[in-house]
Amino acid sequence: MSRKETIAANAAMFSHARRHLESEGYVEIHVPRVVRASGACENVNTLFEVSSGKDFTWFGSQSYLAQTGQLYLEALVPTVGRVYCAGPSFRAEGAIDNRHLTEFQMIEIELPSDFDGLLREIEGVVVAIARGMVSDHEAGKLTLSDESNARLKECPQVFPKITYDEAIGILKETGERIKWGDDISSAREKMLLEHFGKKPLFITRYPDPHWDHGREIEVEKFFNMLPDPEYKGRVLSADLILPYGGEAVGSAARVHVADVMLSRLKNSRMFKRLLALGGSLEDFRWYTDMLEKNGSVPHAGCGFGMARIAQWILGTTDIREAVVFPSNRASLI
Amino acid sequence: MSRKETIAANAAMFSHARRHLESEGYVEIHVPRVVRASGACENVNTLFEVSSGKDFTWFGSQSYLAQTGQLYLEALVPTVGRVYCAGPSFRAEGAIDNRHLTEFQMIEIELPSDFDGLLREIEGVVVAIARGMVSDHEAGKLTLSDESNARLKECPQVFPKITYDEAIGILKETGERIKWGDDISSAREKMLLEHFGKKPLFITRYPDPHWDHGREIEVEKFFNMLPDPEYKGRVLSADLILPYGGEAVGSAARVHVADVMLSRLKNSRMFKRLLALGGSLEDFRWYTDMLEKNGSVPHAGCGFGMARIAQWILGTTDIREAVVFPSNRASLI
Repeated sequence: MSRKETIAANAAMFSHARRHLESEGYVEIHVPRVVRASGACENVNTLFEVSSGKDFTWFGSQSYLAQTGQLYLEALVPTVGRVYCAGPSFRAEGAIDNRHLTEFQMIEIELPSDFDGLLREIEGVVVAIARGMVSDHEAGKLTLSDESNARLKECPQVFPKITYDEAIGILKETGERIKWGDDISSAREKMLLEHFGKKPLFITRYPDPHWDHGREIEVEKFFNMLPDPEYKGRVLSADLILPYGGEAVGSAARVHVADVMLSRLKNSRMFKRLLALGGSLEDFRWYTDMLEKNGSVPHAGCGFGMARIAQWILGTTDIREAVVFPSNRASLI
Repeated sequence: MSRKETIAANAAMFSHARRHLESEGYVEIHVPRVVRASGACENVNTLFEVSSGKDFTWFGSQSYLAQTGQLYLEALVPTVGRVYCAGPSFRAEGAIDNRHLTEFQMIEIELPSDFDGLLREIEGVVVAIARGMVSDHEAGKLTLSDESNARLKECPQVFPKITYDEAIGILKETGERIKWGDDISSAREKMLLEHFGKKPLFITRYPDPHWDHGREIEVEKFFNMLPDPEYKGRVLSADLILPYGGEAVGSAARVHVADVMLSRLKNSRMFKRLLALGGSLEDFRWYTDMLEKNGSVPHAGCGFGMARIAQWILGTTDIREAVVFPSNRASLI
């Protein structure tokens, strides 16, 4: 595709996503992007550090570039209800390839909802984007390839959903050497997509890293994912896999009870890594204090990786073609 | 005001601004926020440095947090036309007070336009926000104080405009000890606002820092502001001053001829400071190369400091009350 198509598609994609969210009652929040470790996703080792060579200090606190606005949104759900943020997510990813960026746009939502309600919200956003793009194409406002237009037109309103366990079973049947607890690589996600007719696909109920501490499992997830009460050893999380883009949305129901959350935080791999970096519980104090003082409500949320959704819209396997200013280790401007 | 009012006002303000921009044909661009010094405003000494303690390097380039997306937008004007970006601007400001944040939201626009056209665009955005807020208030979607509602209702469609020279004259008449070339402090901006009936006020045609190198002038402006062809020693720039918020928009027509821009860059104070920090022309190479190779068109642009517009909407002199997660040296979370 041309750079002009990439520019037009990105602008339209955000516009449709935002209009949909606003029509569904989501309130936009501007979350901080320079943060303590409470702005980290599961892997604190890909946090960028922020400093100033001049007179500036944060009174000794180490500061990072945010990977997610999740906790800042979560903090507002009890009083505001449905909230969202849009902006950059930063990862110190060394890879210079077609799948990794050091900076990419995410739209994140949090809402008072159970897990099934969350999945419907995700479908709603993705379908609104697909329909909006097709409608813009038909109105002559932007140009999609015939293949992209057909793909987006055929996007179902409800996406197929398989559990992680089912995914492992299907992969084993196709001859893959994979066992329960292993990460599902992007190549294997692609196999699953083929199996389900190249439509958006949810993989749900991933292994709970806190389930069995005696056993090493590779699937590492954010510490406050809610354990599935009906399905021992799994969390109520889901990844949405898209053709071309691969894993485009990570989502979960959240733990909202203070002592459960604190226990999961303290026992997480992320926290062990944070300690090794010189961090501590202090990094999360603002959130855990608030949770202990005010409580929260059952809620759930997700992050839409917009560059991967753009890959799906544009039909490209190279993330660098899907964004206007691709950022990786080789492209600092 | 309550935190809920701040949240609702910020969300509505951005929604109205974006809808207005889109209806006026602006295309949203996502600009990089981790950048070389080409993401700096005039003062490179308030750039945050970005690093990673791990395996990650940018092949030796120093990376910073962007203060502005201006050059990235400028690069697209020749092919895309009207463009805008929205997102965080970062400043290593040590002050912990009611006027400074280390991170705040900006909406920036660039368009093929002359200076007068630019000022009309700025009026259009600010008026669209004011009307949108009043309309939301009247529809019961959010609550403004009576004072805020009245102020926004009375916002004129065209704002008074005075030149910098006229501003200095008025201040001298009121007994201020100020001379041509001095910066106009926020306290003095407030005096000018009182003088013009507490309506949004443009101060235009600031001194050109490149006009007379023999003389030290304190007004420091971005290096690519276009010299006023009719008014020697001034640049075609304007600041919009708002009640409560103070300087809320910085704007200028841009130099778009490669050799003029390079000359102004090399002779700027910003560049001297950058050299002192270990930077070089390399930091701007991607932009100057493009300008030399492809040329550009006459264009102009500005940055809307959204927290200061929120102060105006909410009627507060404390910027920390105007945003949902205020970031300063004392508030890292």
